[in-house]
Amino acid sequence: MKVEVQSAVASVKNLKPLFEPKSIAVIGASRRKESVGYAILSNLVSGGFKGRIYPVNPKADQIDNIPCVASILDIKESPDLAVIVLPSNLVPQTIRECGEKKVKAAVIISAGFREIGAEGLRLEKEILEITRQYQIPLMGPNCLGHINTQNRISMNASFSRLTPKMGNIAFISQSGALGAAILDYAAQENIGFSKFVSFGNKVDINELDILRYLKHDDETDVILMYLEDLVEGQAFVDIAREITGDIRKPKPIIAIKSGRTLQGARAAASHTGSLMGSDEIYDAIFMQAGVNRVDSVDEMFDLAIAFANQPLPKSRKTVIVTNAGGPGIMATDACVRCGLEMAPISAETDQALRKVLPPTSNFSNPIDVIGDARADRYEYAIDQIIKEPNADSIFVILTPQSMTEIEETAKVIVAADRKTDKPIIACFVGGKDVSAGMKILSENYVPCYLFPEHAAGALNAMCRYREWVQRPRTEVKRFRADSKGVKKILDEVKNSGRKVLTTHESMKVFEAYGFPVLPYGLANSELEAALKAKEIGFPVVMKVVASQIIHKFDVGGVRLNLKTAEEVKTAFREMKNAISTKFPQAKIDGMLIQKMANPGREVILGMNRDKHFGPLIMFGLGGIYVEALKDVVFRLAPVRELSIKRMIRSIRAIRILEGVRGEKPADLNAIAECLMRLSQLSCEQEDIAEMDINPLLVYPAKDGAQVIDARILLG
Amino acid sequence: MKVEVQSAVASVKNLKPLFEPKSIAVIGASRRKESVGYAILSNLVSGGFKGRIYPVNPKADQIDNIPCVASILDIKESPDLAVIVLPSNLVPQTIRECGEKKVKAAVIISAGFREIGAEGLRLEKEILEITRQYQIPLMGPNCLGHINTQNRISMNASFSRLTPKMGNIAFISQSGALGAAILDYAAQENIGFSKFVSFGNKVDINELDILRYLKHDDETDVILMYLEDLVEGQAFVDIAREITGDIRKPKPIIAIKSGRTLQGARAAASHTGSLMGSDEIYDAIFMQAGVNRVDSVDEMFDLAIAFANQPLPKSRKTVIVTNAGGPGIMATDACVRCGLEMAPISAETDQALRKVLPPTSNFSNPIDVIGDARADRYEYAIDQIIKEPNADSIFVILTPQSMTEIEETAKVIVAADRKTDKPIIACFVGGKDVSAGMKILSENYVPCYLFPEHAAGALNAMCRYREWVQRPRTEVKRFRADSKGVKKILDEVKNSGRKVLTTHESMKVFEAYGFPVLPYGLANSELEAALKAKEIGFPVVMKVVASQIIHKFDVGGVRLNLKTAEEVKTAFREMKNAISTKFPQAKIDGMLIQKMANPGREVILGMNRDKHFGPLIMFGLGGIYVEALKDVVFRLAPVRELSIKRMIRSIRAIRILEGVRGEKPADLNAIAECLMRLSQLSCEQEDIAEMDINPLLVYPAKDGAQVIDARILLG
Repeated sequence: MKVEVQSAVASVKNLKPLFEPKSIAVIGASRRKESVGYAILSNLVSGGFKGRIYPVNPKADQIDNIPCVASILDIKESPDLAVIVLPSNLVPQTIRECGEKKVKAAVIISAGFREIGAEGLRLEKEILEITRQYQIPLMGPNCLGHINTQNRISMNASFSRLTPKMGNIAFISQSGALGAAILDYAAQENIGFSKFVSFGNKVDINELDILRYLKHDDETDVILMYLEDLVEGQAFVDIAREITGDIRKPKPIIAIKSGRTLQGARAAASHTGSLMGSDEIYDAIFMQAGVNRVDSVDEMFDLAIAFANQPLPKSRKTVIVTNAGGPGIMATDACVRCGLEMAPISAETDQALRKVLPPTSNFSNPIDVIGDARADRYEYAIDQIIKEPNADSIFVILTPQSMTEIEETAKVIVAADRKTDKPIIACFVGGKDVSAGMKILSENYVPCYLFPEHAAGALNAMCRYREWVQRPRTEVKRFRADSKGVKKILDEVKNSGRKVLTTHESMKVFEAYGFPVLPYGLANSELEAALKAKEIGFPVVMKVVASQIIHKFDVGGVRLNLKTAEEVKTAFREMKNAISTKFPQAKIDGMLIQKMANPGREVILGMNRDKHFGPLIMFGLGGIYVEALKDVVFRLAPVRELSIKRMIRSIRAIRILEGVRGEKPADLNAIAECLMRLSQLSCEQEDIAEMDINPLLVYPAKDGAQVIDARILLG
Repeated sequence: MKVEVQSAVASVKNLKPLFEPKSIAVIGASRRKESVGYAILSNLVSGGFKGRIYPVNPKADQIDNIPCVASILDIKESPDLAVIVLPSNLVPQTIRECGEKKVKAAVIISAGFREIGAEGLRLEKEILEITRQYQIPLMGPNCLGHINTQNRISMNASFSRLTPKMGNIAFISQSGALGAAILDYAAQENIGFSKFVSFGNKVDINELDILRYLKHDDETDVILMYLEDLVEGQAFVDIAREITGDIRKPKPIIAIKSGRTLQGARAAASHTGSLMGSDEIYDAIFMQAGVNRVDSVDEMFDLAIAFANQPLPKSRKTVIVTNAGGPGIMATDACVRCGLEMAPISAETDQALRKVLPPTSNFSNPIDVIGDARADRYEYAIDQIIKEPNADSIFVILTPQSMTEIEETAKVIVAADRKTDKPIIACFVGGKDVSAGMKILSENYVPCYLFPEHAAGALNAMCRYREWVQRPRTEVKRFRADSKGVKKILDEVKNSGRKVLTTHESMKVFEAYGFPVLPYGLANSELEAALKAKEIGFPVVMKVVASQIIHKFDVGGVRLNLKTAEEVKTAFREMKNAISTKFPQAKIDGMLIQKMANPGREVILGMNRDKHFGPLIMFGLGGIYVEALKDVVFRLAPVRELSIKRMIRSIRAIRILEGVRGEKPADLNAIAECLMRLSQLSCEQEDIAEMDINPLLVYPAKDGAQVIDARILLG
């Protein structure tokens, strides 16, 4: 697995010939009108492709008056792009011919590969080898094809029913059928695309390659993705962060990743593992990449049309202008619930509004210009809000009442939008009658929604994205650590044929990585136990150390609050006897003598190494609540400092750490540092498959935290 | 407040003349085409009203060739309905004339009432008096009017732009503008209505009256409501429960109640009160009434078209049939996330499917008939699912791929729907191309959605509603209680000028209502304390009893785990001295000696009497989590037994009560009984404004629960 990943990272592919070809060979072009081979050729022609088209078909002289060649080898030039629509078994040889012909990129439209089983997968491997040999970037197989609407290219190399209009949104999809549906949706909603890409089984070209291309694509301002999996986690985070966080030209990415529901419980029996469904990994990846994950296509486009057409709001403060109270309240609810702020109306604006609006209007936010408002009253009100210093976005609502001038009002909003750099979003509540106004708005770059909740959702996404772009940039912190010492401990455990570290070994690992481990010592006799306890200072705790015993508490292997040397000795004797009697098979490696911890708030830290994505760091509230509420959050390691801080704040029960009932806030910095050390430990010690610190006791701010118990498992 | 409430309940209005009039007077009918007075008349005429129309206008002989009268008194008959479109100041006299003329119902369309301030409110009061005097049910003022599409009536008595088509959905709205928007939306989406009602300021007729009418309206199968407030809580629960829970003819109610966000923190400083925002009351009311509360208009109609056109599914088990993998996964995600179950495909169905579908199809659920499926393949697959015993609903997805027969497939789905009593819902993902198919479906009673999440949401709502209709019916339990004794205690507190009961008094109240109060006694001297402690049994707890001291813990007024008579005596002396020194103003009424409770799980029970809606019962997890997580639920008292049980199960942290880490489940029956007793106490003792039991300690199943501390406040 690891080798494959590295090779994918290494080869940065040139996708210019794929997206901007000067010539295209359609291998498998057909005269049968209902065939895919005809559809591709026909879309290229009717889409007005600006380059040269070569239909390849040994059985036809021409198709729709375009002369055919029998083989790609018969074409005089080396075509930039080959689009292959042949039965799957013919594809390997065809790719080889493309290689001989020095084709610069290829797309396999045909199905019949991994999706049909083992034979298909074998074909894919064969194809991959050939493309690697000839260094041809290859898209597909099993895809709808791709489209570049850019005037100087004007290429529809897909077998879609529809060619989208030009726009600044790129859409890339792992599902061809969903791509087709989205072209249909976009046609209805008047949405344009810069690029449309159905990338299929991603034998070679995958989402990372396409993102790398789109990063530099001047035609694209917003990127939409439909994904069913990711080839890599960290590489995705890296390229997506570059794109979403580019301060000069940030491009938002909105993604659907389907398969959210658990496909089956993970095998790991460990406590931490049981809380990690694979979907949490994707949540973590998208979060760290600044990608806006959404669940549905309509939500995706709600956001896309806002990002594609309007500047980002300077703050969360918005003003609603409406001709109806009810939808005004609903819009306020929707805004407030998603964290937008209702901007206060300044005295100047209030005065200006009162000069012209009827006295029964509502002059506070939401501003109600009331039901008989014609376009001019909207115009006046919006103009005042453009001047209002508290307002950083404008949310205009229209309901179709008897006096309402739907199209005129739309025009007035468009004109206002041209005057201001505050984002304006509109909501024309209704259907049939309001559609003419909505069309005017969408054609003139004002996003318009049917219902206030959608508009508010889009505005909130814009605010969140602006906060992301403007966030302080932090690094992955590196701490000094005795990594060699830890390697040695782990090697010893491995050599002894074990997978589970003893508490004592686990503590040593965490200590070596600078975690605040509660003072402890290992004792092998009553006397030694008493001496260690004196060194550490009373009261102490005693825990049995035996690799066969995982749940020490359940077997009576823990004694708390031992106050004197005598108590320690007695506890040692009793525990040893009890365990030896009950578990004669358990090899007792000694007793861990630990300082009795001061009471603090319990949290849990964990790591689970995902086979595909690598180490996933977990944080949650400790105690029984971690199980009862599943109030845990994840990040893919390595984790940057800011991401760690946000991670901590994103648990639902954060108020318990912030302090309720007059309690002091917990030392969140200490938690953050532990999580950063855990991230480093996870990345440096790849033998560790799973670990958790449970609990980490956290004390009030500046008083730090302490590792009380810990567990490490090797892979 | 209470008097008003009772009178509203008492007068059941006859709304037949409002909805099914044989004759209508339009008072204020106008020749000016842009006026509301013209629009109403015109809508009545063009809507094809089957009765007689009398335009009333002293300045016109006729309007659009319909002869006018100068005054309603000039009409020869007594019109069933008067629709009034006059300046607000002329309305009272007009209503009086309507009364004299024995008009049977009236609607005031005009604005200019309470929404403009004090003068408007005064006018409303005057009008209400007149209508009460003449006993005319009156709708409005400040509304759009109402529509009855029923063939034999065919009345559009509103000034809407559009007349909806006939259907089986009733829509009633507190906002006229939203009503207008919804007519526009319905026109676009091909949705019909049985009744459309904009009821405005509800001076007389309110949502309760309209619900009572719709309960018996055979034309209505689904009721939609847009509300900004409710006139009453318990009466709404009663009538809505009758409608939604009618086993012979259940009618689902779907409601939007806007104003969800907190309008300002409630004044009550008490702990319980701070958790109760007014919106929780509405959540509780809708829950108890079986009303499906939604947040947006599109969600409302997502549900409405499913309820209006399809039978309820027998279970949550559904089968998805799709021609595309991606949307199939998205649909599965959406279904599973909202609690639907993916039905397993039986061996018989599997065999039947394999006989005809291509081998690359997916034969498990979601069933993928793959991209090249034409209508006949859908037909075959759906027919098998109709026969599949595990499937209780069928969810058909279509994406517009190159081979897809959109309209033919729609027809095949319609035909399948006619063959089965399993509900079928469709999802045609796309826009332009799929719209023709969607139209065929919606015209033939198959709800069709653009995106799977909406379809899944509707299906889930249908399942939830079926569960509601089929729920076991329970009663409000009545327990034997010493209500007179409690009244006496409360009177004494009131007479002493206090609002806060002492712990001792509170305990006596709860004891009188049969709560399991921890054994206790009140002691006024060291000796008495020691004696009481012996009676109760050691160890005991001692708490100071003083009405000025609310937070006993904070002032050192609690001592735990006193094990001997000596310890009790010492504690009594020390506590008394300490408190007398620190709070010389506090009058110590003695010390409460209480049995030291066994450890159990902490929950909190509370009641807060809402001025408008009455007692609201609260339940939540105790300890700091109640504050940190706001994990509390509410019900309006009196609460039925089943509702109490569901209430307990609906806290997020229910797993803590169910038992985690091998802990035994808590005695939920004991909690339920306490909540039922609290409901009874709240209803019978109206002097109590607020109370809470914090904590109630709950023991493992059958071991009961115990009231440890409690607090009662009078109004």
